[in-house]
Amino acid sequence: MKQIKVFAPATVANVTCGYDVLGFAVENPGDEIVARLIDEPKVIIKKITGDGGKLPIEAEKNTAGVSVINYLKHIKSKQGIELEIHKKMPLGSGLGSSASSSVGSVFATNLLFGNLLSKRELLQFTMEAERVACGSAHADNVAPSLFGGLVLIRNYDPIDVIKIKTPKLFATVIHPEIIVKTEDARNILNKNVPLEKVVKQCGNLAGLITGMFTENYELISRSLVDEIIEPQRAKLIPNFYNVKEVAIENGALGCGISGSGPSIFALSKDEKTAEIVGEKMKKEFAKIKIENDVFVSEINNEGVKVI
Amino acid sequence: MKQIKVFAPATVANVTCGYDVLGFAVENPGDEIVARLIDEPKVIIKKITGDGGKLPIEAEKNTAGVSVINYLKHIKSKQGIELEIHKKMPLGSGLGSSASSSVGSVFATNLLFGNLLSKRELLQFTMEAERVACGSAHADNVAPSLFGGLVLIRNYDPIDVIKIKTPKLFATVIHPEIIVKTEDARNILNKNVPLEKVVKQCGNLAGLITGMFTENYELISRSLVDEIIEPQRAKLIPNFYNVKEVAIENGALGCGISGSGPSIFALSKDEKTAEIVGEKMKKEFAKIKIENDVFVSEINNEGVKVI
Repeated sequence: MKQIKVFAPATVANVTCGYDVLGFAVENPGDEIVARLIDEPKVIIKKITGDGGKLPIEAEKNTAGVSVINYLKHIKSKQGIELEIHKKMPLGSGLGSSASSSVGSVFATNLLFGNLLSKRELLQFTMEAERVACGSAHADNVAPSLFGGLVLIRNYDPIDVIKIKTPKLFATVIHPEIIVKTEDARNILNKNVPLEKVVKQCGNLAGLITGMFTENYELISRSLVDEIIEPQRAKLIPNFYNVKEVAIENGALGCGISGSGPSIFALSKDEKTAEIVGEKMKKEFAKIKIENDVFVSEINNEGVKVI
Repeated sequence: MKQIKVFAPATVANVTCGYDVLGFAVENPGDEIVARLIDEPKVIIKKITGDGGKLPIEAEKNTAGVSVINYLKHIKSKQGIELEIHKKMPLGSGLGSSASSSVGSVFATNLLFGNLLSKRELLQFTMEAERVACGSAHADNVAPSLFGGLVLIRNYDPIDVIKIKTPKLFATVIHPEIIVKTEDARNILNKNVPLEKVVKQCGNLAGLITGMFTENYELISRSLVDEIIEPQRAKLIPNFYNVKEVAIENGALGCGISGSGPSIFALSKDEKTAEIVGEKMKKEFAKIKIENDVFVSEINNEGVKVI
């Protein structure tokens, strides 16, 4: 039986001033997905590990299944796909777990069909899968998981996704074991933003992009500020500001909420700093007895890949 | 008597999605300022031409005088400055007329004093002059007039001004002879912005900056969109949307309100297109019998300079 195994990286969306427009991929954690060609024209999820029994095994309810179902429809396939999903990352953590699964499965499937479509063409199927997972076809996790690197979602209609060049950057991601529902994190946001805050956010966002292209770490650091979303969502994560403070104090360029939380990310210039930052963040959560996992890796620049 | 003559370029602020954070300088129009060292420690405006008698001759009420007064205080000068201001650009037009004057005068003065301060250090004096002209120490006209090019005002406290690399770009600027008071243009703006519009604006701004660094004209063009301010201010400029439409139809990459209006700018890839765009825009204003002036030039990359 023809099969392919891929790694689909976890992703950090809502990168401080880049709310809903920026996301990046990390080397660790991520999902491992195995896809096999089968003769019947259907999608079967044969096995899921690492999810603690929480994910649906029905293909049409699981993002990994949904992206493949839509792909097979699109290419009018007479064959089907059997999937194994090995979750190597926390669910509901703000690290784009559902996105990694849908990206991994459709990327593997496309390879089994002889690489019929480009990554850009696969994007639509993963976005549709996001609609199943979170109610809207967001691209800010699926696009970085697919393409790697720091990705700008400039527009949705039509979709316009642009990879942003970055200098060497290391991400520290900490996942505290608390529950923040995406729905709550959305509902908590004011529907309107004071104009002066918009201007500040725009200044920082333009500064962040400029810092990336000019490899100016000081500018990146000054710009990694969220004037709009973080002040509203920080209250959903106990000790958030202390965790952020120790990250910055210990050399991180910046720190913010990953996705809609509860994970928190920091960016650093080098691996050693990223590791120290992780240890210090861990201690802050330990102080209030919240279990947590820390992941340190370079920004993943390749996106989903065969392993 | 020691004297210096400089050219200070006009500027386009609020560059579509870059409201309050982006501005650029043009080669034409601009102000010509003559500064002379005098022995008494004061600032005298000896002559103003091209203003139709509208600008105050009192140094402390004229931005050209204010920036120099503050400069002389700063360097504890025992000498003074005599200024001639030759306005070669329309006043109150949304082209940063007051900014060009204050930049030109203080730049010339600094050279007379042996180039004591850097352009970055001069910025503060020109910002203070803006406070006299428009009530707040805005940098989005003075900074591009000083440094040239496309300039990002990332932050005010502390001031953080960054020059953005651009590919070759030609500006068409049309000034219709109507009055739009800066105050009215400000008061018309809603104090709050719907979050989904903020996200769209952020996507375009990040796209615009990325387009500049990657010299991707198509991306620049797609990103030159203002979802927030233009829809509110367009009504202050008769025929605005028709003028914009002909600019785009005739090859401009994008088009928007310059500063708080009434001038309108367009950006094009080459000079020929920028000229055609100017002619077509002119016709649209002629249709409704509004007198106008058109200026076509490359983006000024040097800023204020000795002539």
